[in-house]
Amino acid sequence: MNKALLVVGSVAFDTLKTRAGERTDILGGAATYIALCASHFAPVNLVAVVGKGDFPDEHVQLLTGRGVNLDGLEMAQGRTFRWSGVYADDFSTRQTLKTELGVFADFDPKIPPHYRSPSFVLLGNIHPAVQEKTLDRIGGAPFVITDTMNLWIDVAADELKRVIARTHLLVINDEEAQQLTGEKQIRNAAKKVLAMGLRAVIIKRGEHGAFLFTGDDVFFCPAIPLEEVIDPTGAGDSFVGGLAGYLVSQDRTDAPALRRAMRCGTAVASVTCEGFGTTATAALTKTRIDERIAFLEKLVRLD
Amino acid sequence: MNKALLVVGSVAFDTLKTRAGERTDILGGAATYIALCASHFAPVNLVAVVGKGDFPDEHVQLLTGRGVNLDGLEMAQGRTFRWSGVYADDFSTRQTLKTELGVFADFDPKIPPHYRSPSFVLLGNIHPAVQEKTLDRIGGAPFVITDTMNLWIDVAADELKRVIARTHLLVINDEEAQQLTGEKQIRNAAKKVLAMGLRAVIIKRGEHGAFLFTGDDVFFCPAIPLEEVIDPTGAGDSFVGGLAGYLVSQDRTDAPALRRAMRCGTAVASVTCEGFGTTATAALTKTRIDERIAFLEKLVRLD
Repeated sequence: MNKALLVVGSVAFDTLKTRAGERTDILGGAATYIALCASHFAPVNLVAVVGKGDFPDEHVQLLTGRGVNLDGLEMAQGRTFRWSGVYADDFSTRQTLKTELGVFADFDPKIPPHYRSPSFVLLGNIHPAVQEKTLDRIGGAPFVITDTMNLWIDVAADELKRVIARTHLLVINDEEAQQLTGEKQIRNAAKKVLAMGLRAVIIKRGEHGAFLFTGDDVFFCPAIPLEEVIDPTGAGDSFVGGLAGYLVSQDRTDAPALRRAMRCGTAVASVTCEGFGTTATAALTKTRIDERIAFLEKLVRLD
Repeated sequence: MNKALLVVGSVAFDTLKTRAGERTDILGGAATYIALCASHFAPVNLVAVVGKGDFPDEHVQLLTGRGVNLDGLEMAQGRTFRWSGVYADDFSTRQTLKTELGVFADFDPKIPPHYRSPSFVLLGNIHPAVQEKTLDRIGGAPFVITDTMNLWIDVAADELKRVIARTHLLVINDEEAQQLTGEKQIRNAAKKVLAMGLRAVIIKRGEHGAFLFTGDDVFFCPAIPLEEVIDPTGAGDSFVGGLAGYLVSQDRTDAPALRRAMRCGTAVASVTCEGFGTTATAALTKTRIDERIAFLEKLVRLD
């Protein structure tokens, strides 16, 4: 069995504007945040695609410097995926201004032989057809963690349902849970999602925290109230990255491990929000992560 | 010292519409919810005003049946305070359709002699001038818990600041905290509120739970995810009622007691949302409350 976390997802350039300022073509993408965060807990094998001509070596070095294996990072002819968006002043909504898929349009995940038979795979938020191909190609019987978004529920519902049928832990937000199930109340939505055959579902509520539903049990992990939010881009990816990295490090997937994993994910996601793009994420340290986990423990403790 | 919780606030008739249905002229008012909830923990002395001609005896009996002392409930010439409103389907907002103050317009709180020198007073969400008069008249050196709303921050800021200066624990929601301090982030808003001289501030986030700030410490109590929400009217009043009742029962106001009190408030508030008006609140039992508190304990427990 392969003891690294296999991550498939996007590596991208983001152009974004928040109440704190704006940045152009900075490093982003779900797989980037996931890899940076998970690497503090476990080895990471990354599968993604970028443009051969426009992806700077400093980004490669940032990831390899964190011990992330990039043998699965394809350098293809064309431009790297680009996204641009603007956040509302209270960060409650964001508007996509432009999406330029570039080499990502024909992304066909290539799994290096030494990536195969992983114990854990994290399907980052990409088209479900690519998530499905990844599962088809990796072999073994991994614990599958799947992230997705409203867009795929809209435009690729059938593929997504096939991926969910092969998923153990689904990570979605409350709006997506409602969209997927038609249920307004989070507990009812979770019940319907679990009935799709999953072992567990996490329903995220952004700055309000996240619920974990396993069988009849419910666990809640609050988000960390921050003194300043600079840019929430990648917070959800960071969350699932920290979470998955912790599970790999423990080689456990039972409910108590999932609960602890949620605190790890919450800790790294809170740091991501404190800088533009991956700035704060890239500067993460184990000490900082441990401080945030301790804060979360204290946040709900009576004495 | 008087060992009952002194409550001042509104007793009203509500006409309301939610996605679950509509009701006309049902029992409501902040002091009603507070008294019904607090009475499961401690004796309650109520100060309010209703119309002599239109307030039915069954409402009086409901409250006295819960052991609430109504010697401070004035029966005045005129009509009882009436409010009507309609909730958005997702309960995120509500619109006031009509407010008819009636006898509440000239409410001059009368404190029966045996109500004086309380250990704890809860100033329900009413005009700060009435809250101030109450403090002037009760005597002693009670622990003062104050609830308020955006309207009073808008139209009676000076009176409200005077009340806050005499308050130990202020209970507001996140929008009110921002309105009061100009701070967007909850931690910064809490710091500014505490700097007004308070011992503690609770910042509520509705269905997302509530924060307690005491000195440099932060505690968070999630809300209970419900399978069905019928009507959230009175949830905030129920919260502060359960909270205050618990503090009186323990005769403590330290941070560990305040944290436990938040769970009591959250437990009773969740029940209030499960029926129209006071229907579910009136049917509260100690067993039901204890079940909900146990749920809250388990909701954040790792093992």
